[in-house]
Amino acid sequence: MIVPVEGGITAPKGFRAAGIACGIKANGKLDLGLVASDDVASAAAVFTTNKAVAAPVVVSREHLAEAKGLARAVVVNSGCANACTGAEGLRVAHLMTAEVARALGCEPEEVLVASTGVIGVSLDPRKVTDGIIAAADALGDHHAEAARSIMTTDPFPKEHAVKVDAGNGKTFTIGGMAKGSGMIEPMLATMLGFLTCDAQVEPAVLQRALVEACDTTFNAITVDGECSTNDSVFALANGASGVVIGDRGGREYEALVEGLRAVCLELALGIVRGGEGATKLVSIHVTGAKTYDEAKRAARAIANSLLVKTAIHGADPNWGRLVAVAGRAGVAFELSGARVLIGDTVLFEHGRPFDERAPQAAEYLKGKDVRIEVNLGTGGPEDATIWTCDLSAEYVKINAEYRT
Amino acid sequence: MIVPVEGGITAPKGFRAAGIACGIKANGKLDLGLVASDDVASAAAVFTTNKAVAAPVVVSREHLAEAKGLARAVVVNSGCANACTGAEGLRVAHLMTAEVARALGCEPEEVLVASTGVIGVSLDPRKVTDGIIAAADALGDHHAEAARSIMTTDPFPKEHAVKVDAGNGKTFTIGGMAKGSGMIEPMLATMLGFLTCDAQVEPAVLQRALVEACDTTFNAITVDGECSTNDSVFALANGASGVVIGDRGGREYEALVEGLRAVCLELALGIVRGGEGATKLVSIHVTGAKTYDEAKRAARAIANSLLVKTAIHGADPNWGRLVAVAGRAGVAFELSGARVLIGDTVLFEHGRPFDERAPQAAEYLKGKDVRIEVNLGTGGPEDATIWTCDLSAEYVKINAEYRT
Repeated sequence: MIVPVEGGITAPKGFRAAGIACGIKANGKLDLGLVASDDVASAAAVFTTNKAVAAPVVVSREHLAEAKGLARAVVVNSGCANACTGAEGLRVAHLMTAEVARALGCEPEEVLVASTGVIGVSLDPRKVTDGIIAAADALGDHHAEAARSIMTTDPFPKEHAVKVDAGNGKTFTIGGMAKGSGMIEPMLATMLGFLTCDAQVEPAVLQRALVEACDTTFNAITVDGECSTNDSVFALANGASGVVIGDRGGREYEALVEGLRAVCLELALGIVRGGEGATKLVSIHVTGAKTYDEAKRAARAIANSLLVKTAIHGADPNWGRLVAVAGRAGVAFELSGARVLIGDTVLFEHGRPFDERAPQAAEYLKGKDVRIEVNLGTGGPEDATIWTCDLSAEYVKINAEYRT
Repeated sequence: MIVPVEGGITAPKGFRAAGIACGIKANGKLDLGLVASDDVASAAAVFTTNKAVAAPVVVSREHLAEAKGLARAVVVNSGCANACTGAEGLRVAHLMTAEVARALGCEPEEVLVASTGVIGVSLDPRKVTDGIIAAADALGDHHAEAARSIMTTDPFPKEHAVKVDAGNGKTFTIGGMAKGSGMIEPMLATMLGFLTCDAQVEPAVLQRALVEACDTTFNAITVDGECSTNDSVFALANGASGVVIGDRGGREYEALVEGLRAVCLELALGIVRGGEGATKLVSIHVTGAKTYDEAKRAARAIANSLLVKTAIHGADPNWGRLVAVAGRAGVAFELSGARVLIGDTVLFEHGRPFDERAPQAAEYLKGKDVRIEVNLGTGGPEDATIWTCDLSAEYVKINAEYRT
């Protein structure tokens, strides 16, 4: 059983957090977050698949390997991605972890690091080191500040926590926070996710569970089809609850995955709801696919289609665009067997449209939460869901004016 | 030598055209075009790769096979795509070719057909047959009317013609017209292209030349990454000039390809310039790729990136987004060797930015014709160009309100 609880990233026992302003953002908003475990924790992470990886991703990968999957803390700044910043960028990312290590009394390899913001701008080493000292001093149950400190164009902070029943009346807790909100695409994007857990889990098991949980949550969302240089999801598990999680196959492992999935899904949907210029959360459910990969690929193609996203923005039940994208998605597709539903309204089936139902579908599309189902018509048994948002003129405005 | 000439689709000898209004478009604008050769012509075509193909594509493919690559005419309507219209849609597409055949005194198999407009709406058989009779009566040098009759959201008609020197003082002529302007992506999109040529060419040779010419023109443009159900490019060659084109390897064949390419490129760039909401024509030149396919794939990814397209719209020289897209394009990429130029300004090289040059690049981006070069840094010898347009709030407006 999974029950939502208060407390975000600091809901699990033995974790403290802080979010402070150290001057990276010119407007004085919170721009540096720190999440620390009182004791050394198992750590896991998934990173961007982009080949232009940012300095913090390089350093976090190194540290996870060097510390054999153990960590004490994650430090993160917003307002500057520290990406495409060459040797100097690597130096600053290393400096950030060293400064946290000094403040917490651990090894630099036990500190993970993330950055988000503009690409190609140098991160001021003085500001972040001063910020880290202040954040370490401020560590406490400041989950709300931490969640705000990682925002860039996000319209609201995203945090969530759940209590998970591991069986035998034992419970453990998982907390998390994330940021979006442009450059969002399956296989991660300019998104950062941070998860804490007070169960005791081997690093390799935590890594496996994190990958499983991300597949249908953080890796099943898209705002604009972009995949950034900095995307990372970190999980720390410190064992403070006394609950021990065994390997795959056991009930505890399943409980861990379900708990992680619950937190990740809430955060992931928050990222889509807060997508740049978004006015609607849209779930694209593809059914009738020959394989799960094809279902996911078709759902992604539909979720990233500008014509689909603009039609939904205009509450236009334009099933023709849905069919056209499914047809070009590079997956098995049979027009004669295809079916399109907007909400519960079937608009296309057996090769013909039902345009007399368009008004009720249009009415449905005026809502904030929209479900679309496209059956690929192959008779295959597989399905997948991708969550996306609509595309508004506001998205264009935000991204045409982000730097200038 | 290739020299632009007047006359569009009717510039080559022995071709006549008409464009009339038959009531498919509610606003009374031209919506039916007919292009006919006085004598039977060699015919070639490339079609959409979308699996949800429209009825006219199905019928044109059949006719090309049945008539062994010969044709007398192409008929086209705008305002209705005749796509996702089931058996009834196929019946109307067949009816259109039969009506043209009756008017011209040829076989239905010698007539090709295309449609463009809204998906999933039935095409009124009475309107198109009446329209075809009127268009056949009106056949003449009405290239301008024909070019207007195929427009949907196109802001202007697109036509072009060239005189080609085949060597030995002999010349032949190629004419063409095309429509865009949303659902535009390499491998064709909601675009239709029509080419006429008065050289004498075997159908198989014409087909080969057409595919070659399209690869770097119609298949190298994108407006919104969409590929539609109706995309088709047709070429007819009737031999009226007396110039005979041999197979690949000969000078005449090369002249044919170059001539086709010249007409296709002009039409293709017109499609991009007239892209929905477009304010700029942008050429994305990817260099330093290991293979031509990788160069084209990376250029396409950049050309379709919402963040790149919105940055260009805002005249923001955001080279970081260009690097980020190149890094996620699924091709070999080396950040340390990568280079980004906007116009002639190098903004990123040897792993570091040159932000002091941003103002001059921003000034350059205010122009209407913009060149961007991204070197993938692999040291590879291959390059490719894709043309795209910027993404404006107007695109969103057009596509959110297309039907409603």
